[in-house]
Amino acid sequence: MSNPKNAFYAQSGGVTAVINASAAGVIETARNYPAKIGKVYAGRNGIIGALKEDLIDTSRESRAAIAKLRYTPSGAFGSCRYKLKSVEENRREYERLIEVFAAHDIGYFFYNGGGDSADTCHKISQLSKKLKYPIQAIHVPKTVDNDLPITDNCPGFGSVAKYIAVSTREASFDVASMAETSTKVFVIEVMGRHAGWIAAAGAMASDEKTPIPIIVLFPEIPFDRKKFIAQVKAKVREFGYVSVVVSEGVTDKKGRFLADQGLVDAFGHAQLGGVAPVVANMVKQDLGYKFHWAVADYMQRAARHIASKTDVDQAYALGKAAVQLAVKGENAVMPIIIRISNKPYKWKIGAAKLSKVANVEKMMPRNFITKDGFSITNKCRDYLLPLMKGEDYPPYKNGLPDYVRLKNLAVKKKLKSDFKL
Amino acid sequence: MSNPKNAFYAQSGGVTAVINASAAGVIETARNYPAKIGKVYAGRNGIIGALKEDLIDTSRESRAAIAKLRYTPSGAFGSCRYKLKSVEENRREYERLIEVFAAHDIGYFFYNGGGDSADTCHKISQLSKKLKYPIQAIHVPKTVDNDLPITDNCPGFGSVAKYIAVSTREASFDVASMAETSTKVFVIEVMGRHAGWIAAAGAMASDEKTPIPIIVLFPEIPFDRKKFIAQVKAKVREFGYVSVVVSEGVTDKKGRFLADQGLVDAFGHAQLGGVAPVVANMVKQDLGYKFHWAVADYMQRAARHIASKTDVDQAYALGKAAVQLAVKGENAVMPIIIRISNKPYKWKIGAAKLSKVANVEKMMPRNFITKDGFSITNKCRDYLLPLMKGEDYPPYKNGLPDYVRLKNLAVKKKLKSDFKL
Repeated sequence: MSNPKNAFYAQSGGVTAVINASAAGVIETARNYPAKIGKVYAGRNGIIGALKEDLIDTSRESRAAIAKLRYTPSGAFGSCRYKLKSVEENRREYERLIEVFAAHDIGYFFYNGGGDSADTCHKISQLSKKLKYPIQAIHVPKTVDNDLPITDNCPGFGSVAKYIAVSTREASFDVASMAETSTKVFVIEVMGRHAGWIAAAGAMASDEKTPIPIIVLFPEIPFDRKKFIAQVKAKVREFGYVSVVVSEGVTDKKGRFLADQGLVDAFGHAQLGGVAPVVANMVKQDLGYKFHWAVADYMQRAARHIASKTDVDQAYALGKAAVQLAVKGENAVMPIIIRISNKPYKWKIGAAKLSKVANVEKMMPRNFITKDGFSITNKCRDYLLPLMKGEDYPPYKNGLPDYVRLKNLAVKKKLKSDFKL
Repeated sequence: MSNPKNAFYAQSGGVTAVINASAAGVIETARNYPAKIGKVYAGRNGIIGALKEDLIDTSRESRAAIAKLRYTPSGAFGSCRYKLKSVEENRREYERLIEVFAAHDIGYFFYNGGGDSADTCHKISQLSKKLKYPIQAIHVPKTVDNDLPITDNCPGFGSVAKYIAVSTREASFDVASMAETSTKVFVIEVMGRHAGWIAAAGAMASDEKTPIPIIVLFPEIPFDRKKFIAQVKAKVREFGYVSVVVSEGVTDKKGRFLADQGLVDAFGHAQLGGVAPVVANMVKQDLGYKFHWAVADYMQRAARHIASKTDVDQAYALGKAAVQLAVKGENAVMPIIIRISNKPYKWKIGAAKLSKVANVEKMMPRNFITKDGFSITNKCRDYLLPLMKGEDYPPYKNGLPDYVRLKNLAVKKKLKSDFKL
């Protein structure tokens, strides 16, 4: 019997509150198959770690440290924004990867990322055929944008959704208290450049028992100032206040980002602003209402302190499933979430071919958005609710979450050559 | 024995994650003294409710509903920004208050607010002398700004501090993951127009076990672009990334708010922006680093989901103490927090005269800020740590905090006259 091959694991693209839970799923499960999988080497800063032969030896992390990844946000091994071209376009990169993989006896490639990364993973999965290097490539889904196809939902999204819904409810309670003599309009800017999934979650702040006037601005619906202002006016008249959840990706009818207003400071320097102040200033100009605005930015995707339990469980389960697929001999696949039922919420793990996943973006279905374009339908609520359910608090020390930092010890280099990115 | 007098309770100024815990303390405790205190009437939208004779009958709320106030953020009865002038300047308002108090047999005045409100409360406390209306006025401290004098700290602050420290730690983990190929600088804007207490809390994200490069920009320290940029450069060189916590109140050497950059949009309209994008753009201009920025705004002061247990306990205890002071016959006082020891943290309730509280702002002591002006000292850490300690999670339903909304039924009006504000 030959020695088991080692595995390579890397985190890719924007990180999330639960991507490390997937890492824990991969590493802990791999440790359960010593006859099949040797060590798990993590790429330092994602795929760049493979190209530069900068590998982290996860076998030197204690069982306890790896377990803590389950409740630690961000990418424990570092991530990167770096997309491989095709083998035809940049053969040099693939040859380098093979050189590194061969030097470290790597036979498994686990890539934890979103749409672009699924594409990279797919390219790696073809190395056996195209460049005769035997490797199994499995993609572990992750993206707060929730825009991967086939899988019912994506790890990372449920926790952002919960954070945005909770924050919108809390801030709305605040505005409601102040509206009589002060702020009447609260605007919160959320992520999602192309798909409005996160913005939709803002509408979940309101429900039957706790109705809240909320206007959602989706990237899927071209912005119409007149209609928007009419909405704001109507809500303030009826409720005394309104909360506006605006996606960073909202565009005007010509497809230009609303955030891109050509702002200049007193010295004429161009300023990169957010879309929240743009929308808030429109309200001020057209209606004169006092406003407040917030930009959640990284806080939303890093908010492990209020992660969704569903999300954490699924992130871990997908990491685990990726290893199980590898052990079964699979290649060019991605474990996915299949929804069995809504009430009670039941789900199971399935698998999708990477050829069907790569470079496909899943937008909000039109029937998830109300006809007027400013809110979500019950169909959307039924979809979102279970993804946000359950709390999974991290342990605290001195008033703060006790997140782990790994030792991240490097594997000794075996190659003499460097690689320029 | 005469009938017990009724009590008036109102929330004032910006609301917090725990001001309703103080309300619960007042109402529950008052219910324990039926021989001394009749009903507790809350002002709808603060003192305006008293002027307009718009009173809420809290006796019509169930015991369970009042108990839920302990974990519900915002002002359950509505707040307002409205400062009474002196009796000499606006006698009409005081005469109206007396008219309303007399009509509803009100003998106790509990005012839950910050510095301005302490001043209002102090003026009310003098009504017995100045206008011969017998009333006991007790101020219940509340302010996220933590700038009231005499009391060791202010309810509302500990929870904001915890939220900002947690969020800064989480976002910093995120930036650290991305820094190799993407974002190197994260800027978070926090509240505190005059005092840097909340900004200081951002520095708590870093501690001995989890060191994080953080630069704090305090309103107490005039902004020096050159020194700031040098700090950013040094931190990025050493750690690969840096987080910047900037107070909304930061000014330049001439005392002008940094946020006020005279921004205009493409149409020449003045735009009200935040200070976070201003600082982030400076980094971009001077160093070329990729940045992200967030503005926490109302999210920070409404974030009951991650409130500090110390804060919740103290907010409740101060509401309770206010009623106990009233029952003892006190007037023109404010219950305060007295710190007994740091390790272990011990505190007790005391009382301060309102004449010493009103219109005094407590700034960060200079020895709480490091010499270079960009961080906090150990003395400051020892002060802040216990205030952020402990979690006190609200109950959840359908993935969201199950906050209470009271019925807020109006007391029948007895006066025929209206009052114009």
